[in-house]
Amino acid sequence: MNIFVLGGATTKFGELWNISPREMARQVLTEALALSGIESGRVDALFVGNMLSGILSNQANLGSFFAEELGHPVAAFRMEAACASGGMAFHNGVNSVLAGRYKTVAILGIEKMTDHGQEHVASSLMAAGSDEERQAGATFVGLYALMAQAYMQQYGATEEDLAAVSVKNHYHGSLNPKAQFQFTTTIEKVMRSPKIADPLKLLDCSPLSDGAAAVIISSDPAVIRKNKKPVRVAASSIASDTLSLHNRKKFTSLEAVVRAAKVAYKEAQVLPDDIDVSEVHDCFTIAEVMAVEDLGFSKKGNGAKDIGGGKYILGKGTAVVNPSGGLKSCGHPVGATGIKQIVEIAEQLRGESGENQHKGAKVGLTHNVGGSGTIAAVHIFKV
Amino acid sequence: MNIFVLGGATTKFGELWNISPREMARQVLTEALALSGIESGRVDALFVGNMLSGILSNQANLGSFFAEELGHPVAAFRMEAACASGGMAFHNGVNSVLAGRYKTVAILGIEKMTDHGQEHVASSLMAAGSDEERQAGATFVGLYALMAQAYMQQYGATEEDLAAVSVKNHYHGSLNPKAQFQFTTTIEKVMRSPKIADPLKLLDCSPLSDGAAAVIISSDPAVIRKNKKPVRVAASSIASDTLSLHNRKKFTSLEAVVRAAKVAYKEAQVLPDDIDVSEVHDCFTIAEVMAVEDLGFSKKGNGAKDIGGGKYILGKGTAVVNPSGGLKSCGHPVGATGIKQIVEIAEQLRGESGENQHKGAKVGLTHNVGGSGTIAAVHIFKV
Repeated sequence: MNIFVLGGATTKFGELWNISPREMARQVLTEALALSGIESGRVDALFVGNMLSGILSNQANLGSFFAEELGHPVAAFRMEAACASGGMAFHNGVNSVLAGRYKTVAILGIEKMTDHGQEHVASSLMAAGSDEERQAGATFVGLYALMAQAYMQQYGATEEDLAAVSVKNHYHGSLNPKAQFQFTTTIEKVMRSPKIADPLKLLDCSPLSDGAAAVIISSDPAVIRKNKKPVRVAASSIASDTLSLHNRKKFTSLEAVVRAAKVAYKEAQVLPDDIDVSEVHDCFTIAEVMAVEDLGFSKKGNGAKDIGGGKYILGKGTAVVNPSGGLKSCGHPVGATGIKQIVEIAEQLRGESGENQHKGAKVGLTHNVGGSGTIAAVHIFKV
Repeated sequence: MNIFVLGGATTKFGELWNISPREMARQVLTEALALSGIESGRVDALFVGNMLSGILSNQANLGSFFAEELGHPVAAFRMEAACASGGMAFHNGVNSVLAGRYKTVAILGIEKMTDHGQEHVASSLMAAGSDEERQAGATFVGLYALMAQAYMQQYGATEEDLAAVSVKNHYHGSLNPKAQFQFTTTIEKVMRSPKIADPLKLLDCSPLSDGAAAVIISSDPAVIRKNKKPVRVAASSIASDTLSLHNRKKFTSLEAVVRAAKVAYKEAQVLPDDIDVSEVHDCFTIAEVMAVEDLGFSKKGNGAKDIGGGKYILGKGTAVVNPSGGLKSCGHPVGATGIKQIVEIAEQLRGESGENQHKGAKVGLTHNVGGSGTIAAVHIFKV
């Protein structure tokens, strides 16, 4: 059975203090349905990716909550897997269509983070981690800093090499009107930005953000026919790993990503070199370095150098990574991120990404990670 | 494709202060796997139903968290839909197998509620409700009390009629060693118990509980063959409704249940009269009254009288409702409930329910509701 991504939409990401989660959801669902050329009555089920609404706002049951915006009593679910909640919601939405249970499904990713105290948000994000790491006072930037230290030691990479990720993604984000940050930066500026957790500095980190994203997928020929440029879901793959770093064999690679990618490439019948464009989970610069290696785009140990050398930059690289600006520049409203990546890749494959377009992209990939690599979703799309 | 429930297990429900969520999960997963006759290595994915762990204990990412107990990096998801989280996890597990994505899946429902302050738990449970109802100071017992008032007024039912649900379910629970409460009760005792929200009294209400339940489902002939008595999943259906009561057409029926049941009966190709045994979501006595009507077992308005008349009681009724003792007597660890119901029905259909056995049961149903009827899962099973 072929399943297609039809319309997709995102809010601008950022500090959206004047707009409620419900209004954010309404905006992106309405726009995604309009771009799909269908009425909300055609939607059989709603999958919602969200991590923090229960903890921060005491609003759970978000499947039914946001289903009210569709105006009819669809099946409705909330999926949570930390920062990979969006990818998990998409995976389960795809499976339910593949099962023949539903024909047309809406998948919404949403998070509201900036209208809460930052310390509260930081401790809530640690809900994705392990008890031991929480008790040890670890934060996610601290855990990724450990990985960065190990990577730099093992492969001789420098802080400047990591900074190149930030420079590339801020350049891409400067072209994207929906990015939270639209400024460009330089290696020097990244190096001069305040240390957060050595060796990661402020400009190595994605921000706290509010935002929502929605996509409509369908297997229904009558619905697909109305769509000018359906994008096929060629693979959907998930793998997990231990919550704590101390239980893993290595710190310089995310095994969950390696495993999920292996299955995804097989399902889509493509090789890493076939991927024209990808949106990867650059919550920290080191995360993108590991991503391009774990996904097979760069040889192990070469990721940072390849990024710095321009291999993945718009207008220069043949395979562009994070053409939207990624989490680094666009922002990272955790539950929304996995769906936002899919909206971006679908637009790339349709040739509708404006200034962020990688010309001629035919095969795209998304890479969404939860916790410190505890869970990973890899999706591949084709036109 | 045929999907079967293999082994299933629950902890005893109750105030389990000396056991952690991880230990609870380990117990039920280990027992469910053993009863299924398979090693954990055969499990491709883990679906976890849980509502409150993030809010009460700041531990989210429960898919990966509990996947550690399986000892290999399975795909892992947490599903949340308030008190229907278990039913939603099961539905998505079934769909993922039906899709051919996974062959053998573990579904875990779990909740730890009693080792937190009761006021904190009560306000956290309202995370399943609407903003307006929270702001108005509503609680779920208050919302169900409104439904009970409307029902009594419309159908001339009495408080004693509602109490009959409690008497029946406490009788069933008195036979069940895993029930939180193993005492029997009487109409008089229910009537004399303290008022919680008029007309509902303490003995009209299910308790706060800790507990876990797990089932293994599979489409893999090699795995199914090892099982002595596989139980077929004949239908899996979900429908939603508005979060707030004030947006609904009536208070005396849960439309989400009516809709989900209609689809489930069609999928399973059975009629309400074909259901030999069911576990329904009796969070309050009025909820079971509406359930037997909305599921088509009793005519509208006759539910309470039918229950009082013994239509659904073990040893007397031809179709037994809540033979385990239901939420009322067994307890209601919210994320675990939907899975526990399925474990009970699978045991009934295998003839393994001991003193709670309804002899000769061939077709069983589970009914799991979230919020004040905001979302409902109806599953039908056959041997």
